[in-house]
Amino acid sequence: MYEGRTKNIYTLDDPDQLIQEFKDDVSAFNEAKPLVIKGKGIIDKNVSVYLFEYLEGFHIPTHFLKDIGDREMLVKRLDMIPIEVVMCNITADSLSKRYGLEQGKELNFPIMEFYIKDNEQQKQMINQTHIVAFELATMDEVRMIERMTSKINAILKSFFLRRNLKLVDFKLEYGRYKNKIVVGDEISPDSCHLWDVATGKRFDKIGFRSDLGNAESAYEEIKKRIF
Amino acid sequence: MYEGRTKNIYTLDDPDQLIQEFKDDVSAFNEAKPLVIKGKGIIDKNVSVYLFEYLEGFHIPTHFLKDIGDREMLVKRLDMIPIEVVMCNITADSLSKRYGLEQGKELNFPIMEFYIKDNEQQKQMINQTHIVAFELATMDEVRMIERMTSKINAILKSFFLRRNLKLVDFKLEYGRYKNKIVVGDEISPDSCHLWDVATGKRFDKIGFRSDLGNAESAYEEIKKRIF
Repeated sequence: MYEGRTKNIYTLDDPDQLIQEFKDDVSAFNEAKPLVIKGKGIIDKNVSVYLFEYLEGFHIPTHFLKDIGDREMLVKRLDMIPIEVVMCNITADSLSKRYGLEQGKELNFPIMEFYIKDNEQQKQMINQTHIVAFELATMDEVRMIERMTSKINAILKSFFLRRNLKLVDFKLEYGRYKNKIVVGDEISPDSCHLWDVATGKRFDKIGFRSDLGNAESAYEEIKKRIF
Repeated sequence: MYEGRTKNIYTLDDPDQLIQEFKDDVSAFNEAKPLVIKGKGIIDKNVSVYLFEYLEGFHIPTHFLKDIGDREMLVKRLDMIPIEVVMCNITADSLSKRYGLEQGKELNFPIMEFYIKDNEQQKQMINQTHIVAFELATMDEVRMIERMTSKINAILKSFFLRRNLKLVDFKLEYGRYKNKIVVGDEISPDSCHLWDVATGKRFDKIGFRSDLGNAESAYEEIKKRIF
């Protein structure tokens, strides 16, 4: 149905289900040069499966149905809401640059940002009123997404902290399934920025950039800490 | 106390009051070349006085105290909240450009945007969570600003429509006065985009750019319609 840089999506006979396949390709840096981290897709899939099941335990509905292979999960077919929700707990990267903030500062209040892609596939910041005005979602749906994102942040922050990882920020995507708002896409090392609590070592794509040879071992390290 | 491009602010013996003086200088276009529209400051002051008194009639607290001269008004001295609130009813200019929208489309739901100035004095979009995280205002204050802005929009939209003007968008600034959120700054042709209902003629700075010779008469026309 869809071939993305880091994931492929396949349809099934059942119109309510899809298969989501995780690839080793890295979507970082807006670089033309394709970059592959061997085994990354398998770790992304395993972490996503684990975290979706973990969230369901807290009564957060996700699109996850079943783990069906090394790189594949069976998911509910959502009517996707075309926005990215980014939750930030610690100042870093684009947030620091945009507002002239020191890197690595813990925020007293988490920042929740919404983005859409414009015609040139560039991310543009929006807020709740743009989402409603552009008819991407209703205000009730936006409020539900805000509540779910805050709850997921609280759950994941302590999940990672128990594994000596700071959840700097992460990205979520949502969709509708039978009139309910549901977490879609993935929650994996690819959609989170994680820093080591003790050393501040960055287990993320920007960390890999300076040390690409270590990317595989960084993913392995995250895997080890999570499981 | 402060000399701005379009306004000067003077302190008084009374620490709770200021004088706000309106100048003829235009703040448009990020141009180095200073631009003056003769008599503009007088019209901006008169319109601001009129609209602040009009809003007070709807129980909206403003900083306005007294009309004290051609270009001067006496105002409450606020503890300013350093954000700009922009309310958009019709797609135009920066909103259209950012999101690839057709110009001049009436929005079913008005868009409320928040901006801060970064270190380079460039406007950066923020949302409620940035405002609280950066400690610019509390969430309660943000909610109050949202409610007041929506109410002011409804009031001003019909005010201008009765004068055959569409309120395309406008900017507000807020501050605290004795623990209350109060509208500050100005509400004038300088802080609003107004289009003629029948012809779509733009009574705003971008309209003047293509027809600078007519800027004075455009301000006069707005004045005539309002009073």
